[in-house]
Amino acid sequence: MALQNDSLIRALLKQPVNRTPVWMMRQAGRYLPEYRKVRAQAGSFMNLCTNPELACEVTLQPLERFDFDAAILFSDILTIPDAMGLGLSFVEGEGPRFARPIASATDVKQLPIPDPTIELQYVTDAVSLIRRELGGRVPLIGFSGSPWTLATYMVEGGSSKTFKKVKALMYEQPQLMHQLLEKITRSVELYLNAQIAAGAQVIMLFDTWGGVLSTEAYQAFSLDYAKQIVANLETESSDQRVPTVLFSKGGGQWLELMAGAGFDGLGLDWQTDIGQARARVGNRVALQGNMDPMVLYASPEVITDEVKRVLDKFGREPGHVFNLGHGVLPDINPEHVKAMVDAVHKYSRVP
Amino acid sequence: MALQNDSLIRALLKQPVNRTPVWMMRQAGRYLPEYRKVRAQAGSFMNLCTNPELACEVTLQPLERFDFDAAILFSDILTIPDAMGLGLSFVEGEGPRFARPIASATDVKQLPIPDPTIELQYVTDAVSLIRRELGGRVPLIGFSGSPWTLATYMVEGGSSKTFKKVKALMYEQPQLMHQLLEKITRSVELYLNAQIAAGAQVIMLFDTWGGVLSTEAYQAFSLDYAKQIVANLETESSDQRVPTVLFSKGGGQWLELMAGAGFDGLGLDWQTDIGQARARVGNRVALQGNMDPMVLYASPEVITDEVKRVLDKFGREPGHVFNLGHGVLPDINPEHVKAMVDAVHKYSRVP
Repeated sequence: MALQNDSLIRALLKQPVNRTPVWMMRQAGRYLPEYRKVRAQAGSFMNLCTNPELACEVTLQPLERFDFDAAILFSDILTIPDAMGLGLSFVEGEGPRFARPIASATDVKQLPIPDPTIELQYVTDAVSLIRRELGGRVPLIGFSGSPWTLATYMVEGGSSKTFKKVKALMYEQPQLMHQLLEKITRSVELYLNAQIAAGAQVIMLFDTWGGVLSTEAYQAFSLDYAKQIVANLETESSDQRVPTVLFSKGGGQWLELMAGAGFDGLGLDWQTDIGQARARVGNRVALQGNMDPMVLYASPEVITDEVKRVLDKFGREPGHVFNLGHGVLPDINPEHVKAMVDAVHKYSRVP
Repeated sequence: MALQNDSLIRALLKQPVNRTPVWMMRQAGRYLPEYRKVRAQAGSFMNLCTNPELACEVTLQPLERFDFDAAILFSDILTIPDAMGLGLSFVEGEGPRFARPIASATDVKQLPIPDPTIELQYVTDAVSLIRRELGGRVPLIGFSGSPWTLATYMVEGGSSKTFKKVKALMYEQPQLMHQLLEKITRSVELYLNAQIAAGAQVIMLFDTWGGVLSTEAYQAFSLDYAKQIVANLETESSDQRVPTVLFSKGGGQWLELMAGAGFDGLGLDWQTDIGQARARVGNRVALQGNMDPMVLYASPEVITDEVKRVLDKFGREPGHVFNLGHGVLPDINPEHVKAMVDAVHKYSRVP
């Protein structure tokens, strides 16, 4: 079935579009009252992730309200370590926790590589269901956390401010760290290929914590594994090419390195100037971003001005996907999101 | 009195040195048992900051243990907003809190500009005392938080993960934000000039939260005020020129902008490659940094290797001050700090 709106895919492949496509990180989420209702019904966040019908429902919710040019699978980046048996739970207000974090060479050795068609079938089922329910309106984005980002949670046992356990491991036992990252990398490859097989039409790799590394460590412990993943994705096998996007939050200094990693697009955080970014990477890759999510606290007039500024900086040539520089915050007024989406379409339209 | 060891000042002025000077952010702090003893004796963190004798004692402690090339005034970046009457307290394990944060135009209008010789006399007294006790061994660094960084705490009422209050103010009422920053800027100028008058021999401006801004906002709301401050510092009035350093954490993308701001040196976080940084800014400014503080969890051998890597990347030409890319963590083994300091001196020594 042909897509009715393929502007996201076209933009990521640097093809001309009638108007700049826009979607939003965490667009299916807590800022929507209809999401909070389903979340309450599910009982827990993981119940919501692991129930394909409910995951499908919340994935589609933002498309009912806003003129987004993509849906993104509702899931969590920590499904893989959970499937590896680390025992994921979410403590209200404190974020994710693993009951059995990685602490030793034995832990790494014993870590299984999950079969996504078994341990993560709830994800591929959700992908298939969402594709069916979308009916070709807009493309569906599948995703995974990057190996480095997953490793931070797996070693720290949850969120961290300093990343001291995972960095101590990296600096003190680099070979063991690489063994861990290789296992995660293989798991991510299988997982993303399963999402593509189930119908994901765009793939995002979220390297949320790449930016806490030194330049050298970023290359060796994050980017090299992202490269390996994108090289092993089956992006050509379906009827339509599946574009890929890498987002290393805090990685604005490394765009030149990232542009050569094999992804079609790069996500930009809001700290990076998108005009300067484009000047640096040329048209080697598409760019996705990058309004400061905090702008959405301001009035629709301010939001519209900021949207124009981002569009102007990029320059309205092929290869731009509008997004926030990070996920939308839970207390944002949905009307402000509407103001952003509508401004992107209005001011980017080719006459 | 001439300095017995002026390598920090020479390096910041890009003059040749026999070995690369080294100091460490938070070198007087919780990782030292002798600090924890004085801190306990003081009763509270603010008692320690406001008592010149105790502040002097903890400032000098790390020099007894390690061959540091500088002392840095023991104080807090929030002394100015406290002197403005915002009511600073430190909640154990939660960081700073202001009883009366800035929330309105009236709050900004009523905000006083503290006279540092009165409301902040405990700081200038500490500076004079430390200078006397140092007896010219190494230079004394004075410091302040940057206006933007102070504003984040003053508007948020404490630490923040998202900076949503201060950013909402910035995006929605930029003129009011500028009025607030102007008052803080004037206060910082007076405060730093008072520190220089009392004997501070190097000045650091800590822009801890500049890196949470977009490039445009960084220039308008952080860097422009830093420029104004450095232009108004009395760095030439004493017998020895007082070099200045700007450290915008997370600002690695903006080094070219920062290099033209009027500071003698720039602090680098660990994410920035110091070799690439030097290639970008040339010899317009000295560079200070930038080992990942987490390397200090690793063994002395690993620490030594990382020290060499940083020295090699910079290239051992004039204009390098060795430091961590951020403050030392409280649970670091002091022996590991010694390994770092000694490695810097050993491997940077000019034969």
